[in-house]
Amino acid sequence: MDYKEKTMKTEKIYEGKIVNLRIDTVELPDKKYSKREIVEHPGSVGIVPITNDGCMVLVRQFRKPIERSILEIPAGKIEINEEPRETALRELVEETGYHSKNMEFLFEFYTSPGFSNEKMYLFLATDLLKGEAEPEDGEYIEVKKIKIEDLMDKIKKGEISDSKTIISILFARKHMDQSR
Amino acid sequence: MDYKEKTMKTEKIYEGKIVNLRIDTVELPDKKYSKREIVEHPGSVGIVPITNDGCMVLVRQFRKPIERSILEIPAGKIEINEEPRETALRELVEETGYHSKNMEFLFEFYTSPGFSNEKMYLFLATDLLKGEAEPEDGEYIEVKKIKIEDLMDKIKKGEISDSKTIISILFARKHMDQSR
Repeated sequence: MDYKEKTMKTEKIYEGKIVNLRIDTVELPDKKYSKREIVEHPGSVGIVPITNDGCMVLVRQFRKPIERSILEIPAGKIEINEEPRETALRELVEETGYHSKNMEFLFEFYTSPGFSNEKMYLFLATDLLKGEAEPEDGEYIEVKKIKIEDLMDKIKKGEISDSKTIISILFARKHMDQSR
Repeated sequence: MDYKEKTMKTEKIYEGKIVNLRIDTVELPDKKYSKREIVEHPGSVGIVPITNDGCMVLVRQFRKPIERSILEIPAGKIEINEEPRETALRELVEETGYHSKNMEFLFEFYTSPGFSNEKMYLFLATDLLKGEAEPEDGEYIEVKKIKIEDLMDKIKKGEISDSKTIISILFARKHMDQSR
């Protein structure tokens, strides 16, 4: 059952700052052809910052695709020649001002593998020290420190609606339950 | 802090079967302009099918964007004039053959709000009855029934690497812990 869809033709539609779009014509197992719309992304990291007093540090920013501001874990695109761990350390400081002395890789996942190759590397950041945030040009970010035990309710109420952030909250709760 | 990025110009790059791509020129709070690359998606549903003997029903299929087959929860695009619950009931049967007599809405989330408006509605499907799968034209899907207690390990090993599936597994484990 482990087959591959052979690429018969590739059409580059757009090359952008963050994503590219290409259309592949593929051959299916029955030899018929089909089209695949593929959004190429360089990959990203998400950081789960947990403070010693049982809070998660989240950021609130406007997201143009959905036309509103939402609460998310700190995250960012992996730059050229950057290791995911470096991206994680850099983005945590830039977006929140927190420095972490203990950045632990958790696991990686594809955000939407049906149409995109975006892979996200998730890190747990503890031993946090608060400094000044260093937002990039054009970034407007509000930092929110919220008790982990209050976060599950925010998912159910729809106040947290971002996949990487939901993964982080469910993971953090599980982690806390185990360490009790 | 709750500002909106005003759209100064919209450029439609591509309209496809599943996604569209457009570039918006926006005005930032400091009055500077910036570009936003936006992948429009009609929305989708994910289904967490739990059997009475403590297993999750997953599907394995080839995903062209990442050039390999991965394990995921059953999921699919919301068709025109379809309610998310209808999509969930339809996709569960099409992809796995299972009928659910108890489809419960859990919560919704954006898969990658930095560049896409894709929203996913997640449902818990229980009281399952096995029938025949009805794959759509061009769909090649293998059904896998796996003990929930074995799934966390598969995330850590990288054998499960899909965001909606990781959310489902973390949620199901939490759900099981509570009902013990």
